[in-house]
Amino acid sequence: MTGSVGRPHELEAIELLASLVGPGPEGEVWIGDDAAVLGPASAPVLFATDLAAEGVHFDRRHGTLADLGWRVLVQNLSDIAAMGGRPRAAVVAVAGAGFDELGLIYEGLLEASRRFGCPVVGGDLSDATALNISVAILGASAGTAPVLRSGAGPGETVFVTGPLGAASAGLRELRADPGARSACTAAFLRPVPRLGEGVAAALGGARAMIDVSDGFGIDLRRLAEASGVGVVLDELPVAPGATPDEALGGGEDYELVFTAPDPGAVAARFAESGLRAPVPVGTTTADVAEFLLRGVPLASTGYEHRLG
Amino acid sequence: MTGSVGRPHELEAIELLASLVGPGPEGEVWIGDDAAVLGPASAPVLFATDLAAEGVHFDRRHGTLADLGWRVLVQNLSDIAAMGGRPRAAVVAVAGAGFDELGLIYEGLLEASRRFGCPVVGGDLSDATALNISVAILGASAGTAPVLRSGAGPGETVFVTGPLGAASAGLRELRADPGARSACTAAFLRPVPRLGEGVAAALGGARAMIDVSDGFGIDLRRLAEASGVGVVLDELPVAPGATPDEALGGGEDYELVFTAPDPGAVAARFAESGLRAPVPVGTTTADVAEFLLRGVPLASTGYEHRLG
Repeated sequence: MTGSVGRPHELEAIELLASLVGPGPEGEVWIGDDAAVLGPASAPVLFATDLAAEGVHFDRRHGTLADLGWRVLVQNLSDIAAMGGRPRAAVVAVAGAGFDELGLIYEGLLEASRRFGCPVVGGDLSDATALNISVAILGASAGTAPVLRSGAGPGETVFVTGPLGAASAGLRELRADPGARSACTAAFLRPVPRLGEGVAAALGGARAMIDVSDGFGIDLRRLAEASGVGVVLDELPVAPGATPDEALGGGEDYELVFTAPDPGAVAARFAESGLRAPVPVGTTTADVAEFLLRGVPLASTGYEHRLG
Repeated sequence: MTGSVGRPHELEAIELLASLVGPGPEGEVWIGDDAAVLGPASAPVLFATDLAAEGVHFDRRHGTLADLGWRVLVQNLSDIAAMGGRPRAAVVAVAGAGFDELGLIYEGLLEASRRFGCPVVGGDLSDATALNISVAILGASAGTAPVLRSGAGPGETVFVTGPLGAASAGLRELRADPGARSACTAAFLRPVPRLGEGVAAALGGARAMIDVSDGFGIDLRRLAEASGVGVVLDELPVAPGATPDEALGGGEDYELVFTAPDPGAVAARFAESGLRAPVPVGTTTADVAEFLLRGVPLASTGYEHRLG
């Protein structure tokens, strides 16, 4: 292999693919959101894929292969959560795992599968020179239209489902000491997809939603750009043990960010569902150029390696 | 990476995964067929994944990246064809492709996507040290129950949708001369999924079906073992340019093999659909130990690298 999609080219690559594929028919969403939305509108189907490649998404010194199996399924579950949907089933393609390694990867995959109610129903196996795990996930609507990235209008409240930066802090701790164990290392090794929160947000009137997979700054900016709104943030909820930079730029938190016009309806839905209240962090504005945290322009830092 | 799933361990690995995952609820099929079948029974959903890894499934000297993109989508379409279903949509995860390479891969992918009516609706991109393309595909029933590998009974006619070995012969020609162009090289580089044939077989009463992805001998044996029947073959239709060994053991033909109790109904359905008649090659028997071609025990040669 020569060459690879480096970060500076990633958005270009996604634009290339989106232009090649085209937008899809009325009522469907193809490339460009957390998951594709397929018709019929009365019972939309959600469909997404996310891969983990050794040396890019994971390093065996920082977690077990069971942790890796868990993480790659959760990364896909989070794409369904970010649409306000429920997972239905997943398929898993593993290249480059030995027999024992495969057993370990599936141990974590199936723990997450049972915990979050998403059976692994098929897969493919192959030799390869490097370990690569690709998961595809199928989801269904939980009773509302799927919540896209593009639906926000000005004057809505911006919420996040929990404090940020724990996964990134956990990775920092593991890099310093592979034996470290803390709430932050758990957030990195065994993240939790916010499935109940995604449904509650949708039922509470969320107009736009995205998961924090690449970093809060960059993911929120994606939502704002897709919606054509600005964002003024008053708060940045930082997880205990994390730095503000990690909260802003660290990826893999898998919290959800969403906007909604009626904060009271959101609070009521989360309370009814017995979920921790989401944190209001700011407001959307009509000025698409505006992207501020406490009056200071916000860097859209984070990793750019996802297609949708 | 140390270790990988070698061929001797592949069936063991699939058994391990099937035992870990479990059989799924009544009416659903999880690991072990060409595609998983998800409920409801009134409108079953088909879901499958197949990957292509550089150095294992393809070699850049024998075809372009556009050919590769075409082949990996067709390999997935063939899984849907083998259930008697119709494709609905695919997602594609590409690891280790540079920007220009990605454009070439998508050129072939999208040609096949348009040709066979299966939009690519989402994906993921990543850096990686080797090129790996994983496709997942979603399909729907074409008006019959999905045709499994396990439904054959004794005394049924065994059909194949076309002569075999062309893809394998084409690869042999390309290895000898990368510039070779023939019907066989076309069969290898731009295979055609037998979607219409799969639906016609299902409507014509097929009881069991599988696609020839790893080799006729091994794929037919999988069908026989899943169904608990023996097979006595009178014919081996060999593609022009291919050897009998290539017809028996060569993979990637993507013809369908199926059994049906009423050859007349099968012939009528194929004729109504304007399709070339499938070739009757033999009969299923009650003796599961019987696996004969013109009275001689048949080697189940071919590649074992698929999970289902």
